[in-house]
Amino acid sequence: MTKYVYDFTEGDRTMADLLGGKGANLAEMTRLGLPVPPGFTITTEACRAYLKQGREPAGMGPQVGTALAATESRSNRKLGSKENPLLLSVRSGAKFSMPGMMDTVLNIGLNDETIVALAEETGDERFAWDSYRRLIQMFGKTVFDIEGEKFEEVFDAHKEKRGAKSDLDLNAQDLQEVVKDFKQIILSETGEEFPQGAYTQLDLAIRAVFNSWNTERAKIYRRQERIPDDLGTAVNVGTMVFGNKGSKSGTGVAFTRDPATGAPGAYGDWLTDAQGEDVVAGIRNTLHLDDLAELMPEVHKELMQIMQTLETHYKDLCDIEFTVEDGKLWMLQTRIGKRTAAAAFRIASQLVDEELITLDEALQRVSGVQLQQLMFPRFDIKAEKKLIAKGIAASPGASVGKVVFSSKVAVEQAASGSKVILVRRETNPDDLAGMVAATGILTSRGGKTSHAAVVARGMGKTAVCGAESLLVDTEAKSITLENGEVLNEGELISIDGTSGEVFLGEVPVAPSLVSRYFEEGLANIESDELIKAVDRLVKHADKTAKLKVRANADTKEDAIRARKMGAEGIGLARTEHMFLGERKKLVETLILAESNEAREAVYEKLLPLQTQDFYELLEVTDGYPVVIRLIDPPLHEFLPEHAALAVEVALAKASGKEDKEKEKLLAAVEANREQNPMLGMRGVRLGLQMPGLFATQVKAIAQATAKLLTEGKHPHPEIMVPLVATVAEFTPIKKEASEIFEKTMKENNQEFDPIIGTMIELPRAALTAERIAEEADFFSFGTNDLTQTTWGFSRDDVESEFVGAYLERGILGTSPFESIDTFGVGELVKMAVKKGRATKPVMLMGVCGEHGGDPLSIHFFAEIGLDYVSCSPFRVPIARLEVGRAAINTVKGSDSR
Amino acid sequence: MTKYVYDFTEGDRTMADLLGGKGANLAEMTRLGLPVPPGFTITTEACRAYLKQGREPAGMGPQVGTALAATESRSNRKLGSKENPLLLSVRSGAKFSMPGMMDTVLNIGLNDETIVALAEETGDERFAWDSYRRLIQMFGKTVFDIEGEKFEEVFDAHKEKRGAKSDLDLNAQDLQEVVKDFKQIILSETGEEFPQGAYTQLDLAIRAVFNSWNTERAKIYRRQERIPDDLGTAVNVGTMVFGNKGSKSGTGVAFTRDPATGAPGAYGDWLTDAQGEDVVAGIRNTLHLDDLAELMPEVHKELMQIMQTLETHYKDLCDIEFTVEDGKLWMLQTRIGKRTAAAAFRIASQLVDEELITLDEALQRVSGVQLQQLMFPRFDIKAEKKLIAKGIAASPGASVGKVVFSSKVAVEQAASGSKVILVRRETNPDDLAGMVAATGILTSRGGKTSHAAVVARGMGKTAVCGAESLLVDTEAKSITLENGEVLNEGELISIDGTSGEVFLGEVPVAPSLVSRYFEEGLANIESDELIKAVDRLVKHADKTAKLKVRANADTKEDAIRARKMGAEGIGLARTEHMFLGERKKLVETLILAESNEAREAVYEKLLPLQTQDFYELLEVTDGYPVVIRLIDPPLHEFLPEHAALAVEVALAKASGKEDKEKEKLLAAVEANREQNPMLGMRGVRLGLQMPGLFATQVKAIAQATAKLLTEGKHPHPEIMVPLVATVAEFTPIKKEASEIFEKTMKENNQEFDPIIGTMIELPRAALTAERIAEEADFFSFGTNDLTQTTWGFSRDDVESEFVGAYLERGILGTSPFESIDTFGVGELVKMAVKKGRATKPVMLMGVCGEHGGDPLSIHFFAEIGLDYVSCSPFRVPIARLEVGRAAINTVKGSDSR
Repeated sequence: MTKYVYDFTEGDRTMADLLGGKGANLAEMTRLGLPVPPGFTITTEACRAYLKQGREPAGMGPQVGTALAATESRSNRKLGSKENPLLLSVRSGAKFSMPGMMDTVLNIGLNDETIVALAEETGDERFAWDSYRRLIQMFGKTVFDIEGEKFEEVFDAHKEKRGAKSDLDLNAQDLQEVVKDFKQIILSETGEEFPQGAYTQLDLAIRAVFNSWNTERAKIYRRQERIPDDLGTAVNVGTMVFGNKGSKSGTGVAFTRDPATGAPGAYGDWLTDAQGEDVVAGIRNTLHLDDLAELMPEVHKELMQIMQTLETHYKDLCDIEFTVEDGKLWMLQTRIGKRTAAAAFRIASQLVDEELITLDEALQRVSGVQLQQLMFPRFDIKAEKKLIAKGIAASPGASVGKVVFSSKVAVEQAASGSKVILVRRETNPDDLAGMVAATGILTSRGGKTSHAAVVARGMGKTAVCGAESLLVDTEAKSITLENGEVLNEGELISIDGTSGEVFLGEVPVAPSLVSRYFEEGLANIESDELIKAVDRLVKHADKTAKLKVRANADTKEDAIRARKMGAEGIGLARTEHMFLGERKKLVETLILAESNEAREAVYEKLLPLQTQDFYELLEVTDGYPVVIRLIDPPLHEFLPEHAALAVEVALAKASGKEDKEKEKLLAAVEANREQNPMLGMRGVRLGLQMPGLFATQVKAIAQATAKLLTEGKHPHPEIMVPLVATVAEFTPIKKEASEIFEKTMKENNQEFDPIIGTMIELPRAALTAERIAEEADFFSFGTNDLTQTTWGFSRDDVESEFVGAYLERGILGTSPFESIDTFGVGELVKMAVKKGRATKPVMLMGVCGEHGGDPLSIHFFAEIGLDYVSCSPFRVPIARLEVGRAAINTVKGSDSR
Repeated sequence: MTKYVYDFTEGDRTMADLLGGKGANLAEMTRLGLPVPPGFTITTEACRAYLKQGREPAGMGPQVGTALAATESRSNRKLGSKENPLLLSVRSGAKFSMPGMMDTVLNIGLNDETIVALAEETGDERFAWDSYRRLIQMFGKTVFDIEGEKFEEVFDAHKEKRGAKSDLDLNAQDLQEVVKDFKQIILSETGEEFPQGAYTQLDLAIRAVFNSWNTERAKIYRRQERIPDDLGTAVNVGTMVFGNKGSKSGTGVAFTRDPATGAPGAYGDWLTDAQGEDVVAGIRNTLHLDDLAELMPEVHKELMQIMQTLETHYKDLCDIEFTVEDGKLWMLQTRIGKRTAAAAFRIASQLVDEELITLDEALQRVSGVQLQQLMFPRFDIKAEKKLIAKGIAASPGASVGKVVFSSKVAVEQAASGSKVILVRRETNPDDLAGMVAATGILTSRGGKTSHAAVVARGMGKTAVCGAESLLVDTEAKSITLENGEVLNEGELISIDGTSGEVFLGEVPVAPSLVSRYFEEGLANIESDELIKAVDRLVKHADKTAKLKVRANADTKEDAIRARKMGAEGIGLARTEHMFLGERKKLVETLILAESNEAREAVYEKLLPLQTQDFYELLEVTDGYPVVIRLIDPPLHEFLPEHAALAVEVALAKASGKEDKEKEKLLAAVEANREQNPMLGMRGVRLGLQMPGLFATQVKAIAQATAKLLTEGKHPHPEIMVPLVATVAEFTPIKKEASEIFEKTMKENNQEFDPIIGTMIELPRAALTAERIAEEADFFSFGTNDLTQTTWGFSRDDVESEFVGAYLERGILGTSPFESIDTFGVGELVKMAVKKGRATKPVMLMGVCGEHGGDPLSIHFFAEIGLDYVSCSPFRVPIARLEVGRAAINTVKGSDSR
């Protein structure tokens, strides 16, 4: 016979799967000998069976009966008895805390007869009627699903009638009438009388808890929190204790340490003569725990001891709910307490000092997401703000600046010392200089992986994207707000990249010390306890880590920052940004070139420039690997936009001022135009079709390497070929690159064997990884592109078009561009690792997509055995922390908290 | 010790892997007791070892010695001996015939001494010197790699000096001088004397054969023919026999039946007093076998008997090479003979009648590619033609018509009875009416899977695409040819969709009876032996087939044609074509609609139209399944092209004539514009984002079904949801569709449960097929799109840009859009079948991409266990033949021929 019911004396904290979090912890406290009102838990298994079959599973009923009898015996009361009646609380309690579910029905067992007994026993008729009133109200709402307003309206009417300001102003007589009216509500809403049978009440309440698992609210909450739908909830049935029995009674909630700051010492609220719901409702002003010490010193002392016991036992911050009934302390709940990011770091470090936990355990108590929260500047929460729009929180941070509409103005204004926010409909590589100059970026189109968002995150700039209510007119240099107001160039706005909010005017910003710690080092800032905790945990993470953390960096500046942040090399140096600005003209010439000679001339000009690029990059990362990706994007990205150019040419023609140069350019644009450039002529395809392009880049890498070697440095370039679909594309490129290196090294009397690998960013590359591994020295998973092709999602398009709607409808649990889609894209990565290692058991494999900086994804990459993750410099600290955590997870199995 | 050498008496025909095709068949003939000159074969294994190590493998030398001794003993001669010298031929012979390799060196063993013996023995000094001359010439060319011209120049000079018209006019003295000069060529070209040692000659010739495996020509040939690079070639060493010993000698080639027509009876050429190379060289006019019967009746009789023996033994058409030396017949070679498509069908059927093979075996002797050749009309090969351009052979056929440049003119001209060729730079859905009206399509851009090519193949229209040398100016209505000539509208051209050729003027066309057979049925045409053979084999294929063949058909007409061609249902009915023409305006209204009401109004208009569409389609396919795909393409395909519209609006503005409608349209175009529409808002994404769109289509299907049921018909619609990446997209669409059907059926008092499935056309769908199978009733693999995303290839772009170059460089063996890429895309399909069937062991799975009509791909789909393939109606006969062949292959293992 399956055991569906556990007395509080039977379970323990490890049984949250079966007893729910609340039930497991009540059992644990009972086991510790703490004063928990007697009771029992009906398991999640019973709930699952109930939901599946539509009725309680066989055997559950009798087991409830047995457990109830034990509770009755322990509390020396009897449910439904006219003498000494037992009253019960019924609470839901899933494995994970779920505000979407029914919470509590109190005072089960009260009816027209037992109320008399309760009144007599307590000598307090008012208290008895108030308890009855509460039962019917809660029962109506949670069991019969009657709108709460219906009860409140009636209650308010009674108060008005009596001229009562608060509930306490109603006397027993009044409450008796309230009870009558409440019963009438039940009758008219359900067609049946309020159930008088105490056992019926209990059964209905238990079923209501089971059913509450599947309310719409609960489902939505689970979807948001990614809680599986098939867990079910447990039901906790406990003996009622009353905090509302006068001045020696009361109720409170407390934390064993301050959950906001992490400061040591208990912290909590207390309300005399009240029940739990009154504290939460905030009707009366609560007192502090210190006040309880004065009111009831013995109780306070016992509570302090219990909290000490709990913290030592749970080895973590606990929060508790307790009630004092006539001077007797009862523990109603405990759990591991929620805390802010700062508190998480401080408490974890404190617990290590107190020798309650190890550093490994401390690392499990903090997360990359928390560290990220600590790193970004935030707007002062108390400041007055005027919200003018809300977009997608694309790159965290808080920035204030003057509105500018072009890269050019942004650069000028920044040069003259102004802080500016670059505002565009959407950005493109042309805006790069402006994005560098700006303190923040705001766009009216695009999502979390739009150009603006990706580049901003890469640079650690604040960005709000896709603020669609804003009408951005870059010609007129104005933004029209939803309400019709117009903002002009130069006006101040503040953007919050963590919330996606856009405010008018300047909102004061609070700087982040944690961020300064990473940028400037411990020695250079005035560190506090938080900084010391961060330092301690991040350094421990470095020690435990099995994956290395590299950074994506295209420039010398980025690379220096990456090193400061603790990156052990560069996992992705894109070379396309090196062809912007002045050099864009060279690329244009290259595309327009009609002969090999003309192309060669461009290459000759590019070679020394690229050599210098790579020299600088390799110099500042001396001794560390630098993955240099050969040029990847389609050529048309270096050409003007088609429609705009076509209009320009047509208008010029119409006005008789033909521009032959422009027409030639238009022809080139049309020749290079593609239906789906993402899937067109780019990456290795371009490298194969335009001889000399990749060779020039490789020559530059080789010459830079030779120069550094001559200078006694230790350059470690790793050459990466993008967009390989078949090993046959890779082989000729590798051969040519090896030959170029050999020749250059011979000319310089140096020796250096470069490692030459490939991106795995197409499904076919993953599917044929065992063949590619025969030629490639390393794999770097480009999970952005791999996500695009695996899902058939063009991130330029779908994020703004429907990923948001998909998330809302629950079709997507999370954007696959944010966290790696383990079922689809992740499966391909896993397959490629396995196939690649089948060919080459020891083969360097890393990831250089956006996912490299995403905590959830990092744990996945650790699990499947990658060697490194690479992310933007600003995410390096987060990744460092997470790779450390992942290593511990891998060793110890998944985090059970 | 590995056996590297096989005497002709030791091997047999099954040993082609080891002995090459030629060697295995020489051994087989020896085994059959046929007169084969004694000799031996050095194995392909020896060749592989030689190529790997750069020298003969240990043991090969002595084995050659032993085999040589046996040959000497059997022929009663000795290599290099001054008396009775043995002369040898050395021939290459790989498993597959390879014209790219060295073929033959004759007369090995002749030198300054043995020639005296040969002259004495034959009493023919001229013959002896001619043989020596031939040896040095062949040896120089094939062993020393000296240009053949060098020898020919010298030879011609001698002839000129002597006033000789033919080789025969040179006497022994002349030839002796030729030998002297030839030796001089060897010396000056190689720096060494022509080798006098007979064993040295043999060794060098063997090595030359080995080395010829890796010549550039051989490599290119292998790439084209998809012959693996690691097979190696065998070497056949045989006793020389001489056909050039006078009037009782000669040489010939013959087929056991006519390889061109398949007519029964031996067929061949004969040349008296000649060696093999003379027949091939075509210097003298050859005689027929009948002539041999008169010249040497005994020899002829023996030859006829031998050919009969061979055909009965090989149970197939054989071709042979033979030589008669002094009245004695020698067999030099036999193999299964190449034949035309028509001959293949006729011979296969004849052999069944002769009870040499079974019908199953006959089916293995023909192929879908051959059937395809028989089905398309061809230009008369004897006609005079003026080639003006060459493009990609996009859709086979031969069409003649007047050049027209627009859909409109094409429709008008066709209506007035003219045959027209629609000429465009590239086509788009707007051109559809014109494509239907035209007899052929010619484009200057795009490849085998461009819109023009795909649609043309679907309609069975001739198409030549990507004829890039043509400058098509649709405005000026002219084509400028490469040579500057200009073709105007109305001029006649002829296009060959099988060769990609474009001719000026009208080239006469020969009609195909086979094609008429399929369209009109056996009873309605004057059938000949070929038609009867085709009929017999296709019907047998239908019987053996394990996969069903369905057709892709969007219209009633297509569906009728598909049924005629033998399709057992429709595997893909696309609905987007139903929104063109008049209805395009409705879609435009839908896109521009700003309210639900406006959208609903469009749906109301669409519903009866779509109901009629589906009614017609289901009516003509009564009793067969029809997979209807809900609308798939991105909306912007129904809107005008962006740049053109932008120019139009800008010009109108500039000239003060603003067009508000156009501007609104431009705004809509810009709002719907996508970077990569292939990966954007289309398919199920559109269906989810635009409520009512899919529902309207499903309602129409349901109403059409209900009407047909009422009429006592048997409609079998299968509803297909396109572009599903996650089961969560599919579920709500399926739910809605089921509800609509249920409601409609209830309203009509009918019962009908539609089956609702999904395309598997994204890698993620394949990777998560086990989840999708929980909801979907069937899978249809859209291998076109799956190829695009798996490779990251946009077929609109890459075919014209680089697939051609990739094929040329050998990076691709074949375009993945033509035959399924088994390593990548095929792997995904296989995985999805396995995962899907893990969830639902019995689940309908088919393929509806272009690959469904490709013979190679069909065999793959049969192997992995699909239920049907679907292809264009015109490819149905080919698919029927191939699914039958595939079933036999699956049972018997791969075809060993």
